[in-house]
Amino acid sequence: MSEVHVARRALLRERCAASAPQDGPADAVLVTRPANIRYLTGRPPHGSALLLGPDGVDTLLGPANPETSLQHHGGSSSDDLRTDRLENCEGDTAVAAADLAVSAGARSLAVEEHHITVARHRAMASVADGLHLTGLACPVEQQRVVKDEEEIAALRIAAEITDQALGELLESILVGRTERHLALELERRLIDHGAEGSAFPTSVATGRNSGLGQHRPTDRRVEEGDFLSVRLGAQYHGYRCQIGRTFVIGTAPEDWQVELYDIVFAAQRAGREALTPGTACSDVDRATRQVLDAAGHAGALGFVTGHGVGLEISEDPRLSPGAMGKLDACVPVTIEPGVHLPGQGGVRIDDTLVVRPAADGGPELLTITTKELLAL
Amino acid sequence: MSEVHVARRALLRERCAASAPQDGPADAVLVTRPANIRYLTGRPPHGSALLLGPDGVDTLLGPANPETSLQHHGGSSSDDLRTDRLENCEGDTAVAAADLAVSAGARSLAVEEHHITVARHRAMASVADGLHLTGLACPVEQQRVVKDEEEIAALRIAAEITDQALGELLESILVGRTERHLALELERRLIDHGAEGSAFPTSVATGRNSGLGQHRPTDRRVEEGDFLSVRLGAQYHGYRCQIGRTFVIGTAPEDWQVELYDIVFAAQRAGREALTPGTACSDVDRATRQVLDAAGHAGALGFVTGHGVGLEISEDPRLSPGAMGKLDACVPVTIEPGVHLPGQGGVRIDDTLVVRPAADGGPELLTITTKELLAL
Repeated sequence: MSEVHVARRALLRERCAASAPQDGPADAVLVTRPANIRYLTGRPPHGSALLLGPDGVDTLLGPANPETSLQHHGGSSSDDLRTDRLENCEGDTAVAAADLAVSAGARSLAVEEHHITVARHRAMASVADGLHLTGLACPVEQQRVVKDEEEIAALRIAAEITDQALGELLESILVGRTERHLALELERRLIDHGAEGSAFPTSVATGRNSGLGQHRPTDRRVEEGDFLSVRLGAQYHGYRCQIGRTFVIGTAPEDWQVELYDIVFAAQRAGREALTPGTACSDVDRATRQVLDAAGHAGALGFVTGHGVGLEISEDPRLSPGAMGKLDACVPVTIEPGVHLPGQGGVRIDDTLVVRPAADGGPELLTITTKELLAL
Repeated sequence: MSEVHVARRALLRERCAASAPQDGPADAVLVTRPANIRYLTGRPPHGSALLLGPDGVDTLLGPANPETSLQHHGGSSSDDLRTDRLENCEGDTAVAAADLAVSAGARSLAVEEHHITVARHRAMASVADGLHLTGLACPVEQQRVVKDEEEIAALRIAAEITDQALGELLESILVGRTERHLALELERRLIDHGAEGSAFPTSVATGRNSGLGQHRPTDRRVEEGDFLSVRLGAQYHGYRCQIGRTFVIGTAPEDWQVELYDIVFAAQRAGREALTPGTACSDVDRATRQVLDAAGHAGALGFVTGHGVGLEISEDPRLSPGAMGKLDACVPVTIEPGVHLPGQGGVRIDDTLVVRPAADGGPELLTITTKELLAL
């Protein structure tokens, strides 16, 4: 993997040199956002800062805590990445990086202004007198949007694990169990099947709670006749996927349940089918949204109907009315519409898919658990 | 509870008015750090921003997502807190708050520069032309240090839940089970006993991994003769506690294990006994640290040997060599020394205690699971 990381850092340097803001490109670049550090180094990012120095040397500065796991303590490692630990135990790695940038001859340093706080920025400016701090915008986030096949393979395994965990739950007795317990059992099963952990907190919603995307599991027990909506995902090699499904408890769903399910299913299918390279992100959102609008559920949706996934569970692109840009091939996204009727419950259906050209068979569905309305 | 929150906000207004930076106190105050919002409003803080306006009106601005749970939609609620949702779906609550502050007549707004990013700060400045943005420092964090008896009661329940979960684990068969599974089981038991969730990711470390405070559970299985160190905590009504214990697996601990355990135990006891109102935080740290230093384990510790707990698992005060300030009564803190011998394993012992005057019986131990070296 280390060659991959070297190449990613080289590409970032090229992009930064080419982007050239008003005053010309910065001499050095500082990356502090954890997922970006992981993407560029493959290392656990906790509390670290990655400096791409003016001298061509890349340095990962880690906190002093003897327990954190930078692989090397000072000196070069196999992938041309220097690693250093702070000597000053209470120091800030970004501040130390600014200091190091000056020592290495940098006169300007581009920082992730969307991640670094005002207070930290000021501390950097005060230690590195004469160093001009500029904004880095989001080139690493942009690099992360299109995944390579190794990244997609990790997501595919994450999705397999997720499908397995969910499949096992569906075979067990559900009536009488609480949302909290079902969520914990799903998380345990993710681990059982090889996940590093949950991609995000598992949501299990029953009865009146069903269909709420961000619902936190409560002590409510599953009852006959309930809708049961679940949303979960595994993390594997750092990559996070997402699935959402809604079931009905008991043998005969009521008419309103079947009707609502069909609407959300149609909206979700419309979104999935819109996933082709070159399609505007806002058009994918519209495809999903207009099915719900036509059925009188215009107000049900939040401001996105899907989003990219990868080292973070919600990353670029956003599928929303105001989203800019178009989809590329090899971009994994979710399609996740839902309708919640207050006091009654609702339906969510979420999938993770990879955008692929029609010639390659169209969008690759990673989360393959059935979307039929199962009565459990 | 709402009167408590009204009083907390009133105190914050007083403190801000009294602190008076160079240009005089700001007309309005913006709180964005989630734990601070929760402390001041009792509401789930996700994505919100709390504005204490120049007109004496407090407004909690929530994101537009229809699923988030501000209790009211526009208009006053029972605790004199206005709640508003953003109309613009993709808007930023802090930016909207800056706009609202100007409408309400504010000329200056104090913001949490230690929480707000450079990019968000700039967006606020650009929408609210003529509004002077100043720094709020950390008055809310300071207000949060000393807990009232209701907060301590929540912590006490969190600790009881934690002791119960750990106690049950100790009665089960451990040999052959993986760190991951033991961690998940502990988390399940926390929920079983009424926790809202884990206060932080549960750590279970066996054999060579034992004694590492930040260890993430692996697939390593518990073996005879291992040290087993666990660190967990429940969250209850938002309040988070922490316990850490180390056990030996099998009937007869080896000499080095007993010796190491005794050293860490002595260090931890020294820290606990130093917890009296008026003691410098650095002196508590020194009490713990010097026992380990004397035994030749000076390098084993990270930069803190304990920290405050409350709505966040690690908050002020820090118990570290460079810590400023003294302990007050009714401040809950952890004492958590540990020694890890690379390749061999180690010991951690963590407790959560509340600082109390000697007249009240001295420090109140919340996590009461035995600290004898149990052979399981």
